[in-house]
Amino acid sequence: MDNVEKKLVVDDAPKLGNRRSFLGRTALLGLAGAGASLGLSGCKEEVSAKKPESAVKPVSAGGIEIAPGQLDEYYSFLSSGHGGDVRILGIPSGRTLKRIPIFNIDCMSGWGITNESKAVIGTKADGSLNYNVGDTHHLHGSYKNGTYDGRWLFTNDKINSRLARIRMDTMECDKITVLPNVMGFHGMFPDKRDPVDEKINYTTRVFCGHEFHVPLPNDGRDIDDPSKWGCLCSCVDAATMEVRWQCRVDGNMDLVATSYDGKLAASNQYNTENGATLADMMSAERDACVFFDVARIEKMVKDGKFTHIGASKVPVVDGRKAANPDPKTSVTCYVPVAKNPHGVNASPDGKYFVCSGKLSPTATVIDLSLVHKWFAGELKTERDAVVAEPEVGLGPLHTCFDGRGNAYTSLFLDSQCTKWNVEKAIAQFKGDKTVNPIIQKLDVQYQPGHIYSSMGETIEADGKYMNSGNKFSKDRFLPVGPLHPETEQLFDISGEKVKLLADHSAYSEPHDGIIVRRDLVKTRQIYNIDDFPNAVKPENAGIERKGNKVHVRLMSQAPNYSMPVIKVKKGDEVTITLTNHDKVEDLTHGFAIPTYNICFIVNPQQTQSVTFKADHIGAYWVYCTHFCHALHLEMRSRFLVEA
Amino acid sequence: MDNVEKKLVVDDAPKLGNRRSFLGRTALLGLAGAGASLGLSGCKEEVSAKKPESAVKPVSAGGIEIAPGQLDEYYSFLSSGHGGDVRILGIPSGRTLKRIPIFNIDCMSGWGITNESKAVIGTKADGSLNYNVGDTHHLHGSYKNGTYDGRWLFTNDKINSRLARIRMDTMECDKITVLPNVMGFHGMFPDKRDPVDEKINYTTRVFCGHEFHVPLPNDGRDIDDPSKWGCLCSCVDAATMEVRWQCRVDGNMDLVATSYDGKLAASNQYNTENGATLADMMSAERDACVFFDVARIEKMVKDGKFTHIGASKVPVVDGRKAANPDPKTSVTCYVPVAKNPHGVNASPDGKYFVCSGKLSPTATVIDLSLVHKWFAGELKTERDAVVAEPEVGLGPLHTCFDGRGNAYTSLFLDSQCTKWNVEKAIAQFKGDKTVNPIIQKLDVQYQPGHIYSSMGETIEADGKYMNSGNKFSKDRFLPVGPLHPETEQLFDISGEKVKLLADHSAYSEPHDGIIVRRDLVKTRQIYNIDDFPNAVKPENAGIERKGNKVHVRLMSQAPNYSMPVIKVKKGDEVTITLTNHDKVEDLTHGFAIPTYNICFIVNPQQTQSVTFKADHIGAYWVYCTHFCHALHLEMRSRFLVEA
Repeated sequence: MDNVEKKLVVDDAPKLGNRRSFLGRTALLGLAGAGASLGLSGCKEEVSAKKPESAVKPVSAGGIEIAPGQLDEYYSFLSSGHGGDVRILGIPSGRTLKRIPIFNIDCMSGWGITNESKAVIGTKADGSLNYNVGDTHHLHGSYKNGTYDGRWLFTNDKINSRLARIRMDTMECDKITVLPNVMGFHGMFPDKRDPVDEKINYTTRVFCGHEFHVPLPNDGRDIDDPSKWGCLCSCVDAATMEVRWQCRVDGNMDLVATSYDGKLAASNQYNTENGATLADMMSAERDACVFFDVARIEKMVKDGKFTHIGASKVPVVDGRKAANPDPKTSVTCYVPVAKNPHGVNASPDGKYFVCSGKLSPTATVIDLSLVHKWFAGELKTERDAVVAEPEVGLGPLHTCFDGRGNAYTSLFLDSQCTKWNVEKAIAQFKGDKTVNPIIQKLDVQYQPGHIYSSMGETIEADGKYMNSGNKFSKDRFLPVGPLHPETEQLFDISGEKVKLLADHSAYSEPHDGIIVRRDLVKTRQIYNIDDFPNAVKPENAGIERKGNKVHVRLMSQAPNYSMPVIKVKKGDEVTITLTNHDKVEDLTHGFAIPTYNICFIVNPQQTQSVTFKADHIGAYWVYCTHFCHALHLEMRSRFLVEA
Repeated sequence: MDNVEKKLVVDDAPKLGNRRSFLGRTALLGLAGAGASLGLSGCKEEVSAKKPESAVKPVSAGGIEIAPGQLDEYYSFLSSGHGGDVRILGIPSGRTLKRIPIFNIDCMSGWGITNESKAVIGTKADGSLNYNVGDTHHLHGSYKNGTYDGRWLFTNDKINSRLARIRMDTMECDKITVLPNVMGFHGMFPDKRDPVDEKINYTTRVFCGHEFHVPLPNDGRDIDDPSKWGCLCSCVDAATMEVRWQCRVDGNMDLVATSYDGKLAASNQYNTENGATLADMMSAERDACVFFDVARIEKMVKDGKFTHIGASKVPVVDGRKAANPDPKTSVTCYVPVAKNPHGVNASPDGKYFVCSGKLSPTATVIDLSLVHKWFAGELKTERDAVVAEPEVGLGPLHTCFDGRGNAYTSLFLDSQCTKWNVEKAIAQFKGDKTVNPIIQKLDVQYQPGHIYSSMGETIEADGKYMNSGNKFSKDRFLPVGPLHPETEQLFDISGEKVKLLADHSAYSEPHDGIIVRRDLVKTRQIYNIDDFPNAVKPENAGIERKGNKVHVRLMSQAPNYSMPVIKVKKGDEVTITLTNHDKVEDLTHGFAIPTYNICFIVNPQQTQSVTFKADHIGAYWVYCTHFCHALHLEMRSRFLVEA
């Protein structure tokens, strides 16, 4: 470790000036160089050598105790990165209440194994899954009147450019849509109102970013010339999950935010350079936040002013600057913000979007009323929509809000969170040198990514809890080998001083999340048997053969399946449809067939099915995998495959 | 709900006599009948209607607070049922520190995706996985001198009869063995010493049960005649993971225990009837615990007194009663125990095995010295090895110990745990009517399965914590739809009275576990680069083509991969080998290729590889999926596939 790096470690937060100078252009390029030994995340290396107890003064968590038998106050819904699923935590306890499989295969529930889940995920001609990996980075809920309506959650797959929807009554994924001509689908946000019809005060669209520019279409053309590649903003219909339109942009798109008036969507852009190498991506001193005038785009689509890309039937509007010279007709507005921003967040008062600088120690505050002015041709430059740019610390990524005028920005490099006041930052930006917007800097352990607060993405932001999703846990938990858990640190933000409440561990790698008041979530505890058109009832239960296709219609009721013996012939295509006739809450049954690679569950009154080829001769015990009854172990049937 | 069922609900634990009568033969058959509406697990239905706060008097968890920055006292390693993985929790905090993928696919780590993991799991000729589902029911650690040596963990797959081994230094699965001619591989236990050589005071064998009797071999013969089917005890070599021998038994095998002297392995048998239907499996009033004299079996193998089954080369010794008429030469001893037992556990003083009755309200205590006497021809009947059979409550399943002479038995039907004293139970069984072995009955929420105590499976049982893995959580957590989490309830057993400390939620469906003192676990925080024969170093990095086979040797160091551009041709078979050159603890990188369904991680100094066909033309951005650096988002390379 050289002296510069040591300095970065031993400096403390208040000496921002010194540390900021380190992030000049030259140093950054050095850091980013191939084979460079001083990766920024290595800067905290020494911390792990300290005794854990001394790393941070333990703060009593007594105030958040959720005793056995007590319920949490909030739900937290989290994306899980390359885990491919979505997680539900109780807050403040940190209890993981459910993992919702989305893009991954989950043999517990049979997600990726049952015919029903395969239909949602998508399959090849041979019935195998198109994909079994995914990377969920962001998760947001559907809105009504500016707050959560408890209807849907949406999440993205960055690897294969898919948007998934979760029904909040059953907490299961019901739709997955592939975005055409998009690669690196990263940020995503539902709208909050209709941009035109004021009566539509709820989510009808989801706006999706596009981080990695690619040839359009990506059919072998221009693969050696990234300067010709591009990115598209996609608008997906929340109800049908079909892609309504796309809008081509200059540069790339990272995260997405939407305005409370429904009129604007926006995305921070860290690669306005359209660079293909790290050095190129960092070359501009300022990047941008691109705003979309949704009504104008949809008017263009209506007026037929669009193209298609490749085989896609989705209308594509041109949102590049060259195609939009006049603000009064432009569909996009590119507001310059500090270098390589990561994150754009809407303040709960509906007034501002905040973009973090990442490679600048600042957060940029954009006044939406001024963006509207720009679109009306009444603002001189896009940059004039910026009303504040407080110095928050090194490596700012994401910002959340407490509903009392304060913002909280995560600092990846400083391993801190900065609490700052938005109006004071605006006053300071205007020139008032007596104001200091920075209220508190608190250490987090370590290298935070996303940060989010209770109800913070709604007009009901209540400023109670804040969660910092930290990418490095290092010494915070018992060691479990080279792969460490991440840390979800929970903070009390209800008072003047932010207080650390708990270190919750998390399997790699949770990204973004929302914290939702429990009264807004209304789930069903058992299914309605008639929701499943293929439900098996006594009148249609049994085995049916058509040629070599055999359909086994089975019912489960603890501790029995309705058929003790199922006999088929080698080579048969077997479909087993299973309806759980138990009605008791929590009385789930499982269904596994040894050797046949079949494993799934049926919740009370649910129906699921599998189809497979009977290619192994012999006797196989189908058994219940989900503990159901004192005679659970004895709950089995014989699956006999004759020659 | 009829009156009988209501009675079962409203009765309370002390009225055991009344409730026991309900479990007579006729009632049981009624309960078990197809379409019966009164599943036993439905009996607690009303509980969920109560307010959660009233379900149990909240007990302060203040005593177990693990404040931020503090470390847990114990590790808990748990099997996860049809989740297919193994989990590591911190105790008492309940933090999930890691999920170790074993039989499942884990797109976060790339388990089931990398060539290295595929080699462990096993593949078909086309390179796809043999299986992607599994059902881990039991987990135990390797021993030295009667306690954990921190070397290995073992777990089973019940669906596809596989035994997996986990290296505890890296907490990763390194071997999976398929047991031939076995179906429903349920219980499993490592030995604690060698049965012959006293110098070998550590684990060298793992004994594996066989729950579902099948035709031997299962090649289409006898599929209509279950009376001809059978079960095998398998002994796997802990070091090579090869199957050393198998021993055929009468009846089936459920869970497994081993003696501290290394001489005996045993399994409870709930289906001594060899029944194929529920009614048949419950017909006998007593079932058995079968003991294996390991040295005698191995002597028979050495002497060539074995057969083979089908294509398997594993020697099979006959342990059925008919083949072993003389105790003095018998390899097995079938000790009658109460009806349909589930579970056999060894007391930490090395003296006793305890089998629970499940359909009898009793736990059966077997004195190992008497089993040895039986094998020596000095005990009249097998049943004479039983020294106690206390009435513990309804639906007893598993028993753990505190090292102070007390046992704790989980009661599925009563939703309770009974604390009882072993020596007092023995005195009572001998006829002392003044003794009551039952110390305490405590409610658990709800329907417990496995129960285990801190260090309770070793001679170092310390009687500090006890965990009850409950199969129904019902109202204990915020509702998350029809699929509920399970509850891992943690208890303080250090005092006279057992105290509930915490309700830890768990994703379905954890089964058995062990609680290990943290000083016994020694992990590595980074890999040794030379542990990987295919490690990529500067001298061999780059791209190599042989015909249409392309090998890309890549290195990662934050925030770069060593090649910004990787160019191949459509139809190439591409192998990408990636070595992570970062040495900083916790600095894991990810690697994903959009469209190509590739996603995996490399921990510090680790090497992983993938092989796939380049069948999509175009430009694809390889990117780092595991947050690593402030410029993590910019850490990408272009994968270009030319026509």
